[in-house]
Amino acid sequence: MQRVKKILNDTADVVAETVEGLVLASDGTTRLMDGHRVIVRQPSAREAGRKGKVGLLVGGGSGHEPLFSGLVGQGLADAAVCGNVFAAPSPDAIAAATQDIDDGAGVLYVYGNYAGDVMNFDMGAELAGDEDITVRNVRVRDDVAAAPKERIDDRRGIAGDLFVVKIAGSACESCDTLDEAWRITAKAEANTRSIGVAVSAGSIPETGKPTFELGDDEIEIGMGAHGEPGVSRQKIGPADAVVDQMMAALLPDLPFERGCEVALLINNLGASTMMELLIANRRIRHCLDQAGVGVHRTEIGHFLTTQEMAGYSITLLKLDDELKHHLDAPARSVAYSRG
Amino acid sequence: MQRVKKILNDTADVVAETVEGLVLASDGTTRLMDGHRVIVRQPSAREAGRKGKVGLLVGGGSGHEPLFSGLVGQGLADAAVCGNVFAAPSPDAIAAATQDIDDGAGVLYVYGNYAGDVMNFDMGAELAGDEDITVRNVRVRDDVAAAPKERIDDRRGIAGDLFVVKIAGSACESCDTLDEAWRITAKAEANTRSIGVAVSAGSIPETGKPTFELGDDEIEIGMGAHGEPGVSRQKIGPADAVVDQMMAALLPDLPFERGCEVALLINNLGASTMMELLIANRRIRHCLDQAGVGVHRTEIGHFLTTQEMAGYSITLLKLDDELKHHLDAPARSVAYSRG
Repeated sequence: MQRVKKILNDTADVVAETVEGLVLASDGTTRLMDGHRVIVRQPSAREAGRKGKVGLLVGGGSGHEPLFSGLVGQGLADAAVCGNVFAAPSPDAIAAATQDIDDGAGVLYVYGNYAGDVMNFDMGAELAGDEDITVRNVRVRDDVAAAPKERIDDRRGIAGDLFVVKIAGSACESCDTLDEAWRITAKAEANTRSIGVAVSAGSIPETGKPTFELGDDEIEIGMGAHGEPGVSRQKIGPADAVVDQMMAALLPDLPFERGCEVALLINNLGASTMMELLIANRRIRHCLDQAGVGVHRTEIGHFLTTQEMAGYSITLLKLDDELKHHLDAPARSVAYSRG
Repeated sequence: MQRVKKILNDTADVVAETVEGLVLASDGTTRLMDGHRVIVRQPSAREAGRKGKVGLLVGGGSGHEPLFSGLVGQGLADAAVCGNVFAAPSPDAIAAATQDIDDGAGVLYVYGNYAGDVMNFDMGAELAGDEDITVRNVRVRDDVAAAPKERIDDRRGIAGDLFVVKIAGSACESCDTLDEAWRITAKAEANTRSIGVAVSAGSIPETGKPTFELGDDEIEIGMGAHGEPGVSRQKIGPADAVVDQMMAALLPDLPFERGCEVALLINNLGASTMMELLIANRRIRHCLDQAGVGVHRTEIGHFLTTQEMAGYSITLLKLDDELKHHLDAPARSVAYSRG
């Protein structure tokens, strides 16, 4: 099979060059740590006059740009640690980033719930603990298709990362203690649910090969962010039917009850058209209306991608006044600027 | 050939459903005009207490989402008029939108320089003139590959639309007269240059067929926003060589002289990975450094797409203090929120 055509230099350099390009795209608001693929906010909170701020470190495998590296900035993360493509960042890099951003109040880690990330972030925290830095974790487990609700710790993190990092960013900016920032962020994570649909696979830059194959008339519901198998491979149907099926899995899971208010995210996995996402949005809103669920805020676009995978995911975050406050707080980064 | 796989309902309804989804994604900040595919800011400037504001109407063919429809909002356009896929909006819809947003100070039109758009916006302006509404135009002609500089009126509008609309939005918000808003917007347009590279074609939803074919190892430099032929079809080379070639066409065209400062936009045409755009950004910055050109602000992501075309365009806008002020002014819409 032909390699998927992409405009790259040496494929061995994709992550180093991506990180370099991201820092340049931030127009001076981030820098790269010496010796590590860690993107750090610049000026730091301390340099900007905010002493003793709770640190926020995010990260995971590369290849999902603009997450996580595009979420470093004011009201968002203090640093992002970037692994190789679809691979967890190293414990050393995590520990170095933790030391860089800690200002005495401790550091909150937010990352997707994948075995490699869990292991390496835990080892990074241990290394940082040797330097007397307190660390707490929020692991995002929003993908309802990854495991049944009873085994929520087996669920993976997908686009819901965006909402959890956004709220963590505001909480770490405004809370006096790591425990309080953790409490708010953990609540956001617990209230977030997502499900995806894949239309075609993405490819890994080094191999140039798609990570799976779908038939010319097939889609897959519940596909993971690296091409992990979903819950249903099926003939492609009308958009409204696809959305209905996804919403039927999403709404009862938390559950999102009549009268509640949510933030809605429709995330492009890569190559789908904005048209398809907007067409889905009509039907999502119809389903939410039917369920008596209100929408406080909509985000639609590319946030967590799987290279050039075609498809999208739907994320709902159930809000209360506290979460709404932190979701709406100002933020500024390469991938997310609001307020 | 198999239809390109997309998650749609009836393909005859794509534009109506896209517009509906866009309005819903705006969380109450836009509405749809009765009887027309026109997205209008809500509350209007007048309803928000800004009387006698110069109106800003943007628009063009659909299929390029999030432009133009995603640029309606505070600090941006008062309305966007949406044609069929890759087809100019009707004079009737343009005239109706003009009447809806005029508050006595006249209306500025900003749109891409395509024969169909020019004809229909001119006819719309004539109809609006019958109602004693003054209209002025800025036609975006940023694509350096579309025609030689001597025939700049034959050049098409591509992603540079974003910068021109952003500056027009701020100018129409703050200027007392249509002539003054036009002057600033026309300067922005005159200072904007773009060039694109296509890796693969997009398809039209109704036919499901790609608009052109490229070989498995080919790219095309200068491809237009609807798949119009570019200046060079060639074997794909390293990213740095592709960028060097594009910058060599871009920099001397205005020209962007040593010591000047620009805003930089790297626009994803649809299906390219963010990784490719970030990798390009490194080299673009290298070329700009070599040319002694400084970067005031970088935008990177999906702004003007050609369905699922893979590829990207590079846009430079030469800034002065006035343009910088309007570029940096706050804005809020589905596709663009800053400050």
